Formats: sequence, C-alpha cells, structure tokens
Amino acid sequence: MLIALKRDANPETVEATLRGRGLWTRRLEGSAGAPALSIEQGSAGISATDLAGIEGVAEVFTAPSAHPRVDAQAGSRPFDAGPVLLAGPCAVEDEAQIHQAARCAARAGARYLRGGAFKPRSSPYAFSGRGELALSWLADAARENNLLVVTEAMSEAQVERVAKVADLLQVGSRNMANFALLHAMGRTKKPVLLKRGMSATIEEWLLAGEHLMNAGAKSVIFCERGVTGFDAHTRNLLDLGAVALLKHHYHLPVIVDPSHAVGRRDLIPPLAHAAMAAGADGLLVEMHPKPARALSDGPQALTPEQLTHLAQEMGLLATEAAP
Amino acid sequence: MLIALKRDANPETVEATLRGRGLWTRRLEGSAGAPALSIEQGSAGISATDLAGIEGVAEVFTAPSAHPRVDAQAGSRPFDAGPVLLAGPCAVEDEAQIHQAARCAARAGARYLRGGAFKPRSSPYAFSGRGELALSWLADAARENNLLVVTEAMSEAQVERVAKVADLLQVGSRNMANFALLHAMGRTKKPVLLKRGMSATIEEWLLAGEHLMNAGAKSVIFCERGVTGFDAHTRNLLDLGAVALLKHHYHLPVIVDPSHAVGRRDLIPPLAHAAMAAGADGLLVEMHPKPARALSDGPQALTPEQLTHLAQEMGLLATEAAP
Amino acid sequence: MLIALKRDANPETVEATLRGRGLWTRRLEGSAGAPALSIEQGSAGISATDLAGIEGVAEVFTAPSAHPRVDAQAGSRPFDAGPVLLAGPCAVEDEAQIHQAARCAARAGARYLRGGAFKPRSSPYAFSGRGELALSWLADAARENNLLVVTEAMSEAQVERVAKVADLLQVGSRNMANFALLHAMGRTKKPVLLKRGMSATIEEWLLAGEHLMNAGAKSVIFCERGVTGFDAHTRNLLDLGAVALLKHHYHLPVIVDPSHAVGRRDLIPPLAHAAMAAGADGLLVEMHPKPARALSDGPQALTPEQLTHLAQEMGLLATEAAP
Amino acid sequence: MLIALKRDANPETVEATLRGRGLWTRRLEGSAGAPALSIEQGSAGISATDLAGIEGVAEVFTAPSAHPRVDAQAGSRPFDAGPVLLAGPCAVEDEAQIHQAARCAARAGARYLRGGAFKPRSSPYAFSGRGELALSWLADAARENNLLVVTEAMSEAQVERVAKVADLLQVGSRNMANFALLHAMGRTKKPVLLKRGMSATIEEWLLAGEHLMNAGAKSVIFCERGVTGFDAHTRNLLDLGAVALLKHHYHLPVIVDPSHAVGRRDLIPPLAHAAMAAGADGLLVEMHPKPARALSDGPQALTPEQLTHLAQEMGLLATEAAP
Repeated sequence: MLIALKRDANPETVEATLRGRGLWTRRLEGSAGAPALSIEQGSAGISATDLAGIEGVAEVFTAPSAHPRVDAQAGSRPFDAGPVLLAGPCAVEDEAQIHQAARCAARAGARYLRGGAFKPRSSPYAFSGRGELALSWLADAARENNLLVVTEAMSEAQVERVAKVADLLQVGSRNMANFALLHAMGRTKKPVLLKRGMSATIEEWLLAGEHLMNAGAKSVIFCERGVTGFDAHTRNLLDLGAVALLKHHYHLPVIVDPSHAVGRRDLIPPLAHAAMAAGADGLLVEMHPKPARALSDGPQALTPEQLTHLAQEMGLLATEAAP
Repeated sequence: MLIALKRDANPETVEATLRGRGLWTRRLEGSAGAPALSIEQGSAGISATDLAGIEGVAEVFTAPSAHPRVDAQAGSRPFDAGPVLLAGPCAVEDEAQIHQAARCAARAGARYLRGGAFKPRSSPYAFSGRGELALSWLADAARENNLLVVTEAMSEAQVERVAKVADLLQVGSRNMANFALLHAMGRTKKPVLLKRGMSATIEEWLLAGEHLMNAGAKSVIFCERGVTGFDAHTRNLLDLGAVALLKHHYHLPVIVDPSHAVGRRDLIPPLAHAAMAAGADGLLVEMHPKPARALSDGPQALTPEQLTHLAQEMGLLATEAAP
Repeated sequence: MLIALKRDANPETVEATLRGRGLWTRRLEGSAGAPALSIEQGSAGISATDLAGIEGVAEVFTAPSAHPRVDAQAGSRPFDAGPVLLAGPCAVEDEAQIHQAARCAARAGARYLRGGAFKPRSSPYAFSGRGELALSWLADAARENNLLVVTEAMSEAQVERVAKVADLLQVGSRNMANFALLHAMGRTKKPVLLKRGMSATIEEWLLAGEHLMNAGAKSVIFCERGVTGFDAHTRNLLDLGAVALLKHHYHLPVIVDPSHAVGRRDLIPPLAHAAMAAGADGLLVEMHPKPARALSDGPQALTPEQLTHLAQEMGLLATEAAP
Repeated sequence: MLIALKRDANPETVEATLRGRGLWTRRLEGSAGAPALSIEQGSAGISATDLAGIEGVAEVFTAPSAHPRVDAQAGSRPFDAGPVLLAGPCAVEDEAQIHQAARCAARAGARYLRGGAFKPRSSPYAFSGRGELALSWLADAARENNLLVVTEAMSEAQVERVAKVADLLQVGSRNMANFALLHAMGRTKKPVLLKRGMSATIEEWLLAGEHLMNAGAKSVIFCERGVTGFDAHTRNLLDLGAVALLKHHYHLPVIVDPSHAVGRRDLIPPLAHAAMAAGADGLLVEMHPKPARALSDGPQALTPEQLTHLAQEMGLLATEAAP
C-alpha cells in the first residue's frame, strides 16, 4: 500500500498518525517532488477508505485482493458451534482399529473422525494406506458413532470415491499447490480442509483456497500444521502468528494440527491449547487406540485417554464424563 | 541416541515398544551384523537408563549434555509466583514518558518495568536510545512504582552501568552469540534474560545460556521472540514449539515476547495467550503511553488500556481493578 | 552413522583419524561403558567398510539407503556428451512464438526446447497455458529445428498426452511430492526431469526420484531451481551446495534452472556459470523472442542474443557462430 | 518502488515496457481513480530517472537508500588486482603451525594469511583460541612470507590489539549485528571484512556495513559464508544469488568463504569456482598443514596440496609452479 501526501502535508505528522494506528511506514520521494509513504507488510489492517480520510493524505494506492472468493468467506463459521475436534488415527489400518478409534473419538467429544485411506509417504516403500477398502470401514465406523468423516485424497483419480464418503475433503500439505487436485476437489462442491504447504506464504495459501473456491468448493477451512524450520528438535515450526492473522485479520475458518507440528505426544496438549488461544476454530489430532502398534506416525499419536483429557481441558467434555 | 540390540532380539518388537513411548526410530545395520536402532531428533524425552531396561536392548549410546549448568536450572522457578508480566516502552524516551509508562505497567499488574536505554538498530542513523541518562530515569520510575527493572546492555562497556540499575539483565536477539557480552554479563552474577537469536537452534540457545552460567550468571531466563521466517506478512515466526520444549522437556524458565514476534498490536493478545498456554512463565510486552508518539516500534506497542485488558485476561488483575 | 570403539581404543586417536578424513564427530557414551563416536550429517562421504578398517573401530552402524534405485543411477551420464542447454519460453503462447523460440534455441546450441503447455500458477485467474494445442505446436517447432522436447505435466490426466510429445517429462517444484503424478510419470517409462520442491531436503528429493524410478521411469535428472529463502531481494535461494553434493557425492545427473532461482535477467548469466562450476550437467533457461510481450515470467526471460552469448561463454558455441 | 500513471495512460502498455526491462509489476488502484504499478523486490535494477522517462508515467516514488556510505563504495576495487586468496588455518594453534601454514599459503599464491587468535565457539568449553600470543605469531608468520593479515576480533576490548596486527579486520557471522563491535572496528579506520549474519537479509547486511563506514572504517568487504538452511546435509546454504547481487547490482567488494558454507573438504573446490563465477572478488579458505591434528574445523580444512591445486585452477598460480 502506498499513500501519496498532499504537497503541503507534514509527512512527520501523517507518519505519527499512521504509527498510532499500528502501521509500519517508510518515507518515499516522488520524482516530481511529491512526498509519499509506503505501508509495510506486517502492519495492522486498515481500509483504504480510512486511510484516505486522514488529514494530509492525497491518494491511497492499494492492490486489489487476489482471492475474492476466499475473502467472501470472511466471518463464516465453519462449524455449527463451539470449537470442533477432528480426531482419529493417522491411517485406517483395519476394520477393528478404525471402529475402536471411532468409539474413542466419539467418547472424547470429537465431531469428525479422521483416518487416511490414501497416505502420501516420502518413501515409495512405506505403508501408504489400505485404499478403497479403508474408505468403507471409515464410513461405517463414523456412522455408527455419529461422527462426520474427514479424509484425504492425494490423486485426482481418488477424489470422486473419497467425496462419496467424506463430509470434509482433506488436501495434504504436499499437495497444497497441486492445482489439478484442487480443481478436482472443488468440482465436488464439498467443503475442503486445506493444509498449508511446508513453505507456503500466507498469500500462496489463500490463493490455493481461491483455486478450490473458483472450482466450486462449498467452503475452505484452512489448517496450519507447521512449516519447514531450521531445527530438527521440533519436527516442524508451528506458525500460530498465521493462525492469528487468518482468524483476527481475515476472519477465515482455520484449524490447527498440533500432531504433525510437533511430532511428539507429550508436547501436543500445550500446543493444542496454544492454537485455540491464538484463534483456531478447532483441532485436527492424531489418536490411536494402540500407538505402539500404529503402522505410521505412532510416536505422535495420542492415546484415547490423552485425547479425552485434552477434550476436557478444551471444555468439549464435562469432567465427570471421562471414563 | 543409538540403541544396539542383542543379537537374538527382534528389531520389530523393540521398535514397536519404542514407538509406543513416543520415539521415532530408524533401523541401522552393523558392519559385524549386530542390529541397531537410532532415535531421531524430535522424539519424546526418555532416559538412557529407561531405554537400557527394555527387553532386547544391549547398549544405549548417548551424547553427554553440552550444557550441564543450564540443565541444573531445571525445575527452578524464575519468579516467586504465578505468571509474570514485564512491560514498558521499547525505549526510554524522556523522564515523563517512563514515569507514565511505569504507572501504567504497575496498574496492570506488571512486576518488571522494561525500557531500552541502549537500543540496537539496523540503521546507524535511527534513534538508538538516550543512554546513561535513561538508566537513571528508568530506575527512578521503577522504584516509585514498586517495579523491578529489566533492560538491555548491547556493549561490554555498558554492562557494569546497566547492572547497577537492572534486576534482570537483557541480552537482545542480535547479541545471543556475542560471547564477549555474555561473559561480561555473567561476571555480574545477576540473573539474565536471554533472547533467542533470529535463527538460533534450540541447542545453540541453550549453549549461549551455558556461556552465561559458566561466566557466573545467577540464572538464565530464556525468551522466545520469533525466528526468521519466509513470509513478511507476520514480522517473525513465533516458535511456541520451542517454548513447549523448554518448559515441558527441559523444565527451564522461559518467557515470550509477543510484541516483536508479530509486530502488530491487534495480534499481540491472542499470541500472548497462546504463549502462556504453550508453557511460558511470563510475557515481555511493549506498551507505550502514547504509541503514536513513540520514537521506535510504535506500531507494536500496546496502549495502557490494552495492557490492562491483557493482564485481566491473564488473571493477573481482578476485573474490577481495571480503571 | 555410529562407530562403536574397541574397549581399549583411544577415542582421541580415532577422532583425529576421522577428522583427517573429513568427518565431523561427536563423542557418545555407552550405557555399558563402551566408547562410541557418531558421524554428523554434512561430513565427507566414506564407506562403512573403510571406517571398519580403522584401528580401534569395533563396529560401524549405518542406515541402509532409502533410495536404492536412484543410487543405481550413480555415474550415469544423462546426456550423450558435454554440458546440455535446455532453453525456450516459460509458456508456449502461440504457434509463431514457439517456432521463433525454437529457431533461437537451436541457433544457440540448445539440445532441448522447453515451453509450458500446462502452467501451474499461484492464482487461478492467471494465464495457465494453451494446453493440448500448445503440445502439438511445441512438437512441430522442436522437430523442425532438430531439438528434443522437455515439458511439464501437472496433472495425472495430462501425463499420457504430454508423454507422446516430450522426450523428457518435467515435474515442477510444486509437484515434487505429488506422488500420484510421479507414479503416472514413472509408468510412461520415460526419463524425467525432477525439480526440487521449494523446501525439500535433499533426502526428500532423492526419495521423490525413487518414487519415479520405482514406478518405472527410465532415468531421473534432478533440477535445482532455488529453495524458499527469507529475503525477497532474490526470488529464491539457489542451493549450489546441493548441486555439488548430488554431483560429487552421489554422482547423479543434475541440472540447474537459474531463471527461476534469481528471477532477473541480468543475474542469470553469472548464476548459470556458477551452476556449471558447482557440477551441473546442464542448464534449463527461460528465453523469449520478445520478453516484453511474454504472457508469463517475462522479466526473467533472456533475449535470444543473451542466450547465444551465454552459450558461447559456456563453450557450447564457437564464438564466430554467433549471429 | 511505485509508479503513478497518467490518467490517460494504458496500464497494459506500460506494464509490457517494464516487463521488457526486467521488472516484476503489480497493478494498484488509487482511491481517487489514478492507475499505478508497484515494482516488486527481486526486479532488475533501474533508476527512477529512467522510469520517469517512460511514456505514460506520471511520477515515480522511491525510498532513498538507507546506506549511502556503503553505496559510495560502488565500483571500488577491494584488492589491487585479480582475484585474491585469503587462506590459513581456522585457528592459530602454535608458532610452528602458523609458520608452516603461512609458507603453504604463500606458495599457493595467497595474498592474505588468515588465522583466528580469538575464536567464537558455540560451547564455552570448546577451544577458543590462543589469544594475544597468537596475534604476534600470526604477524611474524605473515611478515616472513610476505603476506597480509586478516583476523577476527570478537570483543570491543580486543579491537585495538587486533588492529595493530591485522591489515583487514574480520567481523564474524555471529557478530554482524553486534553494533558496539562494529563501531569499535570502524574507529580504527581500517578496512573491514564483514561476514554475513546467519539469517541476515541483504539489506541488514548492507546496513551493518553502513554502521562500519559511519564509524570510520576505510572500506568494507562483504563476505558470504552460507546462511541458515533447513537441511543439515550441507552445513549452511551458500547464497551465490546474494554474491551476484552485491557484485552486479550494487557493484560492491564481495568475497566468499566456501569452507564454512559447505563444511566438507571435497565440496569446497566446486563451490569455490562457483563463487568466482557468480562474481566474487576472492575467496577466504581454511587450510591446515595437518587437518587431522586441527584443534577446530579440521574436517573442512583443505590440505596445502589441495589449496595449491585450487589456486592453479583459479589461475592464481602457473601450473608448473606447483610443488
């Protein structure tokens, strides 16, 4: 954003006013002598109209939003009420496992059952999900426990089948900028959970949402799961500033996946609470009935007891309701 | 960490046990045929003794800690009780300003008054603090309002003078690895607030603490203030995973500076609450009686009213105590 | 990698030997008293057999490679001879443009004609390629000028059509971890140009190559194009250390795309030469007959004259051959 | 930079002209209806005067440079002639070692002898240099071999003593934003070698140079040594785009330290050549007469033979001059 000043304006006075409103400014010089100020990224939100009304301002130049359909979601509530818990195992491993997980999730107050039928894995030789069969197990387990289904499609060819089962379609981090997949998802007209890419800027993330909306998606729920950092001590770098920005500046639906962010069970509850405090509408959490036997991501799966405890602390569950 | 297995052990069984305890493992092959597992960074904490007791484990190899003096602080409580608020302006600008700020901070329940007498600035031409005179104003303002003083020294030559005034010496992010300064600070025997360097790993941060302790510092309070990220949309990337790790894994004193992390007033309260939820012992917050007139960092300074409101939400202040 | 020492070995002597061979070591303690050393990432390459032969070493523990099919490519020469130039416009815009570009590329000594028929774009509203029609224009233009074709498929549904035209299939950065696309590409049995993901580690990149090879790809040529950095001053951060590692440690085919790395025409030649010096087998370069009229990426397109000049400096073209 | 257009100008035509000159543009809307274009970071360099002359442009707004004294160095040649080699051990360990190193460096055609008397180390328990005694050994060794001296001061208190010996004062990466040290260095009026901070933007690096110049430094030579990356496979991420920018856009003196960038002996020569191709004026290289016995950084020290070989390849040394 750039603010051209009136020729007789005092740039220092205007700058003080802008700083008072939370804007970081930089003084520019016009080739024909007009004074101007640029507003730096990272400044508080303020409308061009408000800026234009400030004493001494001649004209305000702004870039039109590149994601109008996403912006139009502002203020929408992604879920009917309250914070929402989306829980379940990393992968659907077998029928018994997902039914057991569904019961645990339901007992903990979760609204959605998560579980991967198709799993993107860095190695081609790692377990990559049970596929179609897992989708039907997942659907049955959710239905029996009165849960909705959130699950990932990682190929255009899977989208239709996944959409038959999922109430909420998931785009994984690795596929945030897989536009062909986004378009296929959008065409289902379903709501989509869009995980942030490992090093996607917030603008790129919003634009990926625009790809979905433009292709027909009913709504987009953004999901922060940690970005690539420089320290392997914690798996990923959970960016709660981005969550605060999406919620308090853009007013968009946003949830957090603390499991992938930190990768270790004992640190998931504090980060889950931090995410809610930063403005998240809900949490996507990995839970496994028997983490020691998990085929993937076991070390970061909560036990059913830990999930119940977290739900209680979140106020999702009355304390006496605990097993 | 590496775990050598007994020759007759079943690596899969041992791996399942380890995963169940929150450890990420990787299978290794010994040149003489012995099976082994490495434990990856980002795993849950577990002692070598516990690991050695697991069925099938022959020997556990660990690196000794590189920061024994910092480790010895584990479990210590940096402040007498409850969460602590350290608040005040970015810089001490004049006598009236710091006295007014001190009154506001005290009213909000802060225990420490912050305010820079010496300010590191990227540009040599920017306001860099009032220097020694500011130290005495700061000391007076704190004393009159029954507050303790936290302030930064950015040069070895300033340490002695700053130490006369400060109850808590501050090392800024830019100087986290300025070892000559750390040694000079340590020699004062005072407690030190150590801000994390812009791209310091957690191990490097702990080692900077070890430099302080080894030189004589009474204690070290670690302060997370956001690391360098790839998106200017938020000024820095607040790493609450690091805070959770320091508190829940290392059991060390840690506070958070949400002001520098996010750089905009409206997002500071949600991140402040997130920081406390992640495990912080307190908050270092910029507040200015008149942000529009601040000589530095105005856009990220809370107003006195916002600080009071934040303190109420943190439970530092009874609601009725508000002005 | 971990090295268990004989009980009577002197760890300092072994460490000195290892340092002399370019290894960064860390001293470990065994729970049963055995001394050990871990070799840190970033060390020189050395085989387990060589290490096992060092005086004082009892056993060497190593992780088996996770990408054996990629490793088996070591030492293969991706192109028949000499450095190779792959040049052409960002996008195929119309028949005349690509024919003109092909003539310029051929004149400059390029062996492959590049040009996007399908373009991934951050915004759904940006020009995203002419699609199938462009493929046929591209094929004609290449054939007439005796060039081979390299072009990208960004959807599984496009792979078959693209494979009919392309001698070398391109995977874009955004799709490096789009495993469904990698598998579809691999099934064509063609050689694939695999661009590195924006924040992919080298191991993740090699594993993406393994996905391709395991699905049937004839060969994989790795292409570095800059990773996500923290400074917008240069578009991306060209990682020539990764190029040196792939070539001189892994002995794999690797080329560099300096155009996307730096994003500005004037800096492309110095970075192109730097890439070749670091070990690249060739360069993928954007060139447009009329950069001012380019529908995408114009500011980073070389002019035909600049490409010819670069080719001369690379020794691809006799100086007198220039127009 | 922002370009306000005349009310009757066609923004598309102006945009095409700008793209043709290597500028990335973004369309803005003025609150009073005036069209405008912003020029994004990462664009080619172009002067405001040139822009103002383009058909349709009403006014060009630019931020004045924040580092005029550094800018004034543009075009200056840091060294009398040709590429320059600054070589020697990480640390001065004893008198014999530095004399032997000096002879090797001289034989390889180096102009400066490097060697640390004071070494910043992450751990307080690591070898941190021989101090003042090492300074005199270093001076003697250089004099006897007709070399100049470059060495680091890491404390304000050391600057005067180091300045007595050093022809070129070195600021280490960790101290790039240690402004008290920069000011002390500047006051010596000597030329300074300024290493880039681990995550310093180019602007921050230039501003650190401005701190030096403003305090009196005779000249500043910038030294790129790799920034913090996300992959430990290579120690740091060598940013040759920054080198190209400093040399070809800012026309400033810049050298590269490939030793710290990549950390392994075998990859130093390719990166050294890449650095020269990108525009470096010289190289700062670690060499140790006996790397296996080095007290620090042994694994990245070249042997004397390797240094000689590198110097020959750089054209610093006739091939027949080799031992």
